[in-house]
Amino acid sequence: MEISEFSLTIYPMFDFSITAKNNRARAGVFSTPHGELVTPVFAPVGTQATVKTLTPEHLKNINASLVLSNTYHLYLRPGDELIRDMGGLHKFMQWPNPMLTDSGGYQVFSLSDTRKIDDDGSTHRFTPEKSISIQENLGADIIMAFDECSDPNDLAYSKIAMDRTHRWAERSVNAKTRPDQALFGIVQGGVNPDLRAESAQFIASLDTPGIAIGGLSVGETKEEMHNTLDIVIPLLPEIKPRYLMGVGTPEDLINGIARGVDIFDCVLPTRLARHHSAFTPEGRLNMMNATFSRDSRPLDEDCDCYTCLTFTRAYIRHLIVAKELLAGTLLSIHNLRALIRLVAEIRSTIMAGTFESHVDGWLAQWGGNAERKLKNI
Amino acid sequence: MEISEFSLTIYPMFDFSITAKNNRARAGVFSTPHGELVTPVFAPVGTQATVKTLTPEHLKNINASLVLSNTYHLYLRPGDELIRDMGGLHKFMQWPNPMLTDSGGYQVFSLSDTRKIDDDGSTHRFTPEKSISIQENLGADIIMAFDECSDPNDLAYSKIAMDRTHRWAERSVNAKTRPDQALFGIVQGGVNPDLRAESAQFIASLDTPGIAIGGLSVGETKEEMHNTLDIVIPLLPEIKPRYLMGVGTPEDLINGIARGVDIFDCVLPTRLARHHSAFTPEGRLNMMNATFSRDSRPLDEDCDCYTCLTFTRAYIRHLIVAKELLAGTLLSIHNLRALIRLVAEIRSTIMAGTFESHVDGWLAQWGGNAERKLKNI
Repeated sequence: MEISEFSLTIYPMFDFSITAKNNRARAGVFSTPHGELVTPVFAPVGTQATVKTLTPEHLKNINASLVLSNTYHLYLRPGDELIRDMGGLHKFMQWPNPMLTDSGGYQVFSLSDTRKIDDDGSTHRFTPEKSISIQENLGADIIMAFDECSDPNDLAYSKIAMDRTHRWAERSVNAKTRPDQALFGIVQGGVNPDLRAESAQFIASLDTPGIAIGGLSVGETKEEMHNTLDIVIPLLPEIKPRYLMGVGTPEDLINGIARGVDIFDCVLPTRLARHHSAFTPEGRLNMMNATFSRDSRPLDEDCDCYTCLTFTRAYIRHLIVAKELLAGTLLSIHNLRALIRLVAEIRSTIMAGTFESHVDGWLAQWGGNAERKLKNI
Repeated sequence: MEISEFSLTIYPMFDFSITAKNNRARAGVFSTPHGELVTPVFAPVGTQATVKTLTPEHLKNINASLVLSNTYHLYLRPGDELIRDMGGLHKFMQWPNPMLTDSGGYQVFSLSDTRKIDDDGSTHRFTPEKSISIQENLGADIIMAFDECSDPNDLAYSKIAMDRTHRWAERSVNAKTRPDQALFGIVQGGVNPDLRAESAQFIASLDTPGIAIGGLSVGETKEEMHNTLDIVIPLLPEIKPRYLMGVGTPEDLINGIARGVDIFDCVLPTRLARHHSAFTPEGRLNMMNATFSRDSRPLDEDCDCYTCLTFTRAYIRHLIVAKELLAGTLLSIHNLRALIRLVAEIRSTIMAGTFESHVDGWLAQWGGNAERKLKNI
């Protein structure tokens, strides 16, 4: 175990301090204009300027600190200029704490060819400059360089997309003007070790206060994800926070933190909630199951969320069967709180220097035996 | 203006005190095993053991005191015996304050012929004894005699339904066993003055701690509703609380209170909310309207609800356009709070003896000129 305490002021309005390390896992504090993020941190996703079915009060009550919103969706509806004119994204959705926006690149490429993206069917041409301009109108604390995420199984395309992502990262850095926003470059390169190493070195060479790792959790195997993190992260500067985009499951968080990731986001907890699934110590439970019809226990007896402190499994199952929307709200509160509690628990072991002794237990609880490859890192 | 202070203990666990009267309008307190209701009171409807899209916390924060739930729906799903075994309806849905259940009669007659009512398509035979047994399993503080609501335009059927309702009311009184539940008889008779007078006298003769007026807001005109109340209420004992079922709009509340009604319930505020409509001082607004896209005001600048204290009209419109469920939650909070505030404001004028001087103003704000018939009562 190694503990180091140091801090580097990267941009005048941002600061990242690493308070403790256990092998590659780290606990830190990332200061932003809207408050401090204690890392590792898991960010709920509020795609359309709302974490689906939840109020900001709910998010505060589960101790959420960072919320992600999607640039492409907000650009289409209600429009980034409207949000700017209404005082910016924090004020518009009444989230006073740190926020992050993605670049829109993922949605431009994944959605624009497969669906009609606005009423007149027009397409929207995104450029690095346009993505940054939109993100500056939105006003999140952490913003992303415009990038292209490739199919991990297509090596030739991964190379083209990576090169494009690098050129766009430079243009994004040059386009950025607001001092109160931290721009993160994004490492791409599919699952090819050489491309990933090249991308990590290139993105690390840019003057950005943080670095994102994109293009994972998009169809590759868990082993490919872990191998990619094992290649990329050692090439990144220690003093910049690392954000693993769109990840993940509880076991992905454990494995990511063990490899040195500081920031995560994922729609999974809220999406599962709307499909009746709950994170519990017994595993992921489908709460529509008749087994729960007279179950007077909370979802998780050790959980401190409003749902678990208030309602039985029987009631939640009734709401699901009766197609009541409150089911999605209550399960979203719980699933998000479960991940936020897990990350907080992990952080406390990093602070105590005992992280590695807990990893097998967490993986057994959250990921099962299939995930027990951590010892190899 | 007349002020009277008296109290009658009807059942050992219930008490109704009238604190102030202005002509026929009255302010009172109805004590139940789960707490006091200050009357007049408006009850949100939680059909399936949940006020749609809201948590009990939301309901407490808007100062809701009485919540209604529907016997027929709960009998079908999740079942009244399940709710009994889980500790009763209050505990099941975690509403610690007074509750009311209807008899199921309305749904038996309105729904059973037009839809398949459970998975095997079987029909469910309700009787007064069965309705009371189900309501005793549910355990609400206020329960209803089994009744039949008739088409107001069918005189012959109204007579048959009324006679049946009277026989069923007697059987309901005889079937009831729990001392911690107040059974209300229900006045029927369509819109025929003679039937309504006969029904009022019959129901008033029964030994029940409260009286409901059913069969209104089901297709009759406003004038017919008011005339019916003008016939029925003077025939009811002063010392029993009066509950006008399934009513209503803000103007219906004002007109009902003026005629001596103490308790109301209606799905309107939450149903309108889910259809994007907001009660405001400017009238009922469709918040999907593009007019609101950059409107930085709250729904109602004078409202103290979470929605109005937190969000702009522009944000609510965005949620609606983006099909985000939070829109229904935020509008439900506001619409319910608007009616609860209106009733509280009305009560304070009854206490101050100034009710009648405010009626025209309220009706002008809430109901428009068409409703200004109050002076004729």
